[in-house]
Amino acid sequence: MRYTVGMRAATIADGRILIADRPDPIPGPGQLLVRVGAAGLNGADMMQLRGLYPPPPGVPADIPGLELAGEVVALGSGATRYRPGDRVMSLVGGGAQAELAVVDESAAMPVPAALDWPAAGGFPEIFTTAHDALVSQCGLQSGERLLVTGAAGGVGTAAVQIGIALGAGVVASVRHPALRPAVAELGAQVMDPLEAAGRGPYDVILELVGGPSFEANLPALAQGGRLAVIGVGGGPRVELDLLALMGRRARVMGSTLRSRSPEEKALATRRIETDLLPLVEAGRLRVIVGEVFALEGAPDAYARFASGGKLGKIVLIPCALATGA
Amino acid sequence: MRYTVGMRAATIADGRILIADRPDPIPGPGQLLVRVGAAGLNGADMMQLRGLYPPPPGVPADIPGLELAGEVVALGSGATRYRPGDRVMSLVGGGAQAELAVVDESAAMPVPAALDWPAAGGFPEIFTTAHDALVSQCGLQSGERLLVTGAAGGVGTAAVQIGIALGAGVVASVRHPALRPAVAELGAQVMDPLEAAGRGPYDVILELVGGPSFEANLPALAQGGRLAVIGVGGGPRVELDLLALMGRRARVMGSTLRSRSPEEKALATRRIETDLLPLVEAGRLRVIVGEVFALEGAPDAYARFASGGKLGKIVLIPCALATGA
Repeated sequence: MRYTVGMRAATIADGRILIADRPDPIPGPGQLLVRVGAAGLNGADMMQLRGLYPPPPGVPADIPGLELAGEVVALGSGATRYRPGDRVMSLVGGGAQAELAVVDESAAMPVPAALDWPAAGGFPEIFTTAHDALVSQCGLQSGERLLVTGAAGGVGTAAVQIGIALGAGVVASVRHPALRPAVAELGAQVMDPLEAAGRGPYDVILELVGGPSFEANLPALAQGGRLAVIGVGGGPRVELDLLALMGRRARVMGSTLRSRSPEEKALATRRIETDLLPLVEAGRLRVIVGEVFALEGAPDAYARFASGGKLGKIVLIPCALATGA
Repeated sequence: MRYTVGMRAATIADGRILIADRPDPIPGPGQLLVRVGAAGLNGADMMQLRGLYPPPPGVPADIPGLELAGEVVALGSGATRYRPGDRVMSLVGGGAQAELAVVDESAAMPVPAALDWPAAGGFPEIFTTAHDALVSQCGLQSGERLLVTGAAGGVGTAAVQIGIALGAGVVASVRHPALRPAVAELGAQVMDPLEAAGRGPYDVILELVGGPSFEANLPALAQGGRLAVIGVGGGPRVELDLLALMGRRARVMGSTLRSRSPEEKALATRRIETDLLPLVEAGRLRVIVGEVFALEGAPDAYARFASGGKLGKIVLIPCALATGA
């Protein structure tokens, strides 16, 4: 009798999301095969759906998903850090929104006991993105003033918490009044975007909106200020006043995680393990999960993400895994 | 009999440069009184003349000049590093284009024997600016590719030489064909700006022109590229494509030296002493002096600077000092 393999996976076809049967992936050298308990949605998934964000080589071209949490079910050759049954979470180049996925062992982290599956599946992308931008790129220091724009989303809620944990004074701009109380609970002063732009100067600005938000916030940068652009939902093309940049001796930087090499992702992962996982265990960082959808509900989840105005993460649940290590 | 004091100084009045008698400056604590042998002109002087670049507090508001070389003639209280007769060169907050000027001892450097007075008077601003931008801000590494725009000017000729000395591959864009051979002699590949923008990717771009040059060069940045804006003669307002910045994980930074604190200037000065003065002594870095004017010729010197198309530095000679230490 032939042993049939196959899994259910979110699949991009003709610019739409559907659920399809796909061959099980096979872990290569140094990789883990993981049964996916949760996989977060991200802005990059929306861009990939529109054909604007092609996945890197070696990644399933039509199965989206940049992060996951799940149980290890098999090891590729040379993978030694984890055992079958271990709970791991990881950034991946793609392919996370499926019942099974392969993960580079070097990019995998153990799931802290404090995180349930939806929280773990929504942790890697937003916390790695926010930590990389605030710490590795902007060098945020204790006592500095931080502005996070569009702070009610996934990266925003992660950035507010990291800023507070590092000892920064955090102002968060949130357009929808209904979402402000939840962000204020994380420790930020929350206000509308126009008011936040007038409350400078800020040592660091994490720009998650782009467009007019960027233009309004640049003059609010302090001397030596750093502005990291992570999202451009408000528009990618902006006017930049170079004299304002020079007079403030300011830096504007852009970043994406997805284009990084496996080595860089492994390095970023180690930083998250050392800097943030202890704070997760201590209950000082948490993943704000706004809505959870079964894998078959992926089309609804994408529509919900695209409609905006959400709080925190939207997470898919491909497999119902037992809770606990 | 009353002892009369007074010096000749370039003076800004009603948006024009003239030469006037002014009281001798008096060195304060930790300062040197210097008889000025040479004082370079800079773009910031042109902006100050147009009222766009007010000098910082504690600096003569109407005597321009951001750098000088000369002989120490008196010491303020607590100044111990130099003796009367020593040859020093320094960044100053203003007031350099006069027969006498005061200098913070912490910002003064000894003049290497390899530099004559005009070269020494034109050294501090351009080499500090270029070194700060390329090394301290952009982190230029050996083997990286560097583009210097507007490379025939003062900062440009300094940046090309520093890039070569650090082991970078240097492309220099020079608009005027007549100026290209002199820049090529410094070790760069020299070409017109349009051709240079097409020769990327560059790890580091030193943008000395601004405006359309900035917009043409940003797409030539490599992954992880750094672009420092130091000059905006081509226009201060530009369009910035945030997605291009993110996709390249690039940084755009602006800087000016003038707004820095005395402590920051002292730190920058120590870096120049340790990193660059040995290269000056070894003949590997030189100051390209395009034209020299007596102090009384300051109006002509300013007109020459404003007309553009110059090679290297324009330097004023307030006092005819003996050459040699």
